[in-house]
Amino acid sequence: MKTNPAECLYCTKNQTQKDLMIKICDLSVSELFLFKEQSYRGRCLVAYKDHVDGLFELSDENRNAFMADVAKTAAAMDKALHPDKINYGAYGDTLSHLHFHLVPKYQGAYGWGGVFEMNPKQTYLTDTEYAEIIESIKASL
Amino acid sequence: MKTNPAECLYCTKNQTQKDLMIKICDLSVSELFLFKEQSYRGRCLVAYKDHVDGLFELSDENRNAFMADVAKTAAAMDKALHPDKINYGAYGDTLSHLHFHLVPKYQGAYGWGGVFEMNPKQTYLTDTEYAEIIESIKASL
Repeated sequence: MKTNPAECLYCTKNQTQKDLMIKICDLSVSELFLFKEQSYRGRCLVAYKDHVDGLFELSDENRNAFMADVAKTAAAMDKALHPDKINYGAYGDTLSHLHFHLVPKYQGAYGWGGVFEMNPKQTYLTDTEYAEIIESIKASL
Repeated sequence: MKTNPAECLYCTKNQTQKDLMIKICDLSVSELFLFKEQSYRGRCLVAYKDHVDGLFELSDENRNAFMADVAKTAAAMDKALHPDKINYGAYGDTLSHLHFHLVPKYQGAYGWGGVFEMNPKQTYLTDTEYAEIIESIKASL
């Protein structure tokens, strides 16, 4: 099921997007966001710049650039937050705009040892706390 | 938590691995497997050739090659099986060997619209059925 750009939260930058995530910065071919639901402390999301459905639809050059953005983000999260593992997930069954969830996992903490949940809807931070995490990741990029 | 190669199912190719997956073929820097649990028809797994914990630990060259293997597999799954979406997930909190799950999703079928489960333990096929899926993917690589 393909969705079109007019319905896409990454293309329209609508309220649904603002409710779910906070923009951190642009990367080479993508945008980096902090996911507001923070059951997994430091969880981020890297969205490709264009409305492309799947990873295998990108040219080699654009796929390499996108995955470099993903890896750069993961390295910054690792440096800033010291998780024990970072999980990567791209789903989007009903949202045709390529994006990867980057989910730090901490031994003994929420969800350790399994897949991560899309949205536990449990843990939200104050604006100051969001800003602190964002600054720590930006400083490590 | 880092695990070492002697405990790793991808390095030792032990019975645990044989119970979980069937090797399809080698790719440029990885091995391609069919996941035996087939709630998501055609589900595959691409494991990096070496015991490396995370995507961001690879050199640019090796990351590009690995993601080219992942994308090539996804394109072959798309061509062979015609899913409505392919999901990608890399977790491995307790298994320090980089691998991506590639999970076809079909509108209206199991798990459509959400993340995929690591192992629903519901759907297993006959050897003939596994062979048919493997051949269809190999023919599309």
